[in-house]
Amino acid sequence: MDLINIIGLVAAFLTTISSLPQVIKTIKLKEARDISFWMWALLALGIFLWLIYGILKNDFPIILANGISLFLILIVLGLKIKFK
Amino acid sequence: MDLINIIGLVAAFLTTISSLPQVIKTIKLKEARDISFWMWALLALGIFLWLIYGILKNDFPIILANGISLFLILIVLGLKIKFK
Repeated sequence: MDLINIIGLVAAFLTTISSLPQVIKTIKLKEARDISFWMWALLALGIFLWLIYGILKNDFPIILANGISLFLILIVLGLKIKFK
Repeated sequence: MDLINIIGLVAAFLTTISSLPQVIKTIKLKEARDISFWMWALLALGIFLWLIYGILKNDFPIILANGISLFLILIVLGLKIKFK
């Protein structure tokens, strides 16, 4: 694999798992006041459309990365709605 | 343009601007306690690598989307560091 593909894979990995620290922090804190609902709503809709895009193009890396992202994003959105 | 490309463009637009409501909210609130530093640090590094990937591949849409994203993400990260 060449350097450009490795950079792309690392980039995809980091952006995919980036919501995980927010999930952990919000579960621990039980507070989400400073978090923007609209940010996570826009992100959820955007990543959902990326997932549809991947499915329509039959592109497995896009489906996998955005499927994991969407799962984590929906947890944060649910926690935001729960804790306000 | 076909439907798949339109879905991809809308997805890219939404994920690119999704940090904007967080920027506005944090500037108004002057508080960022509930926001995870590590989420925004991972996201900044991941999007920075997407930007490098786009530059190395000479792919203008990837450069544009991730350039705007990185700008907004660095503002949130700066506000998080400032307001704790």
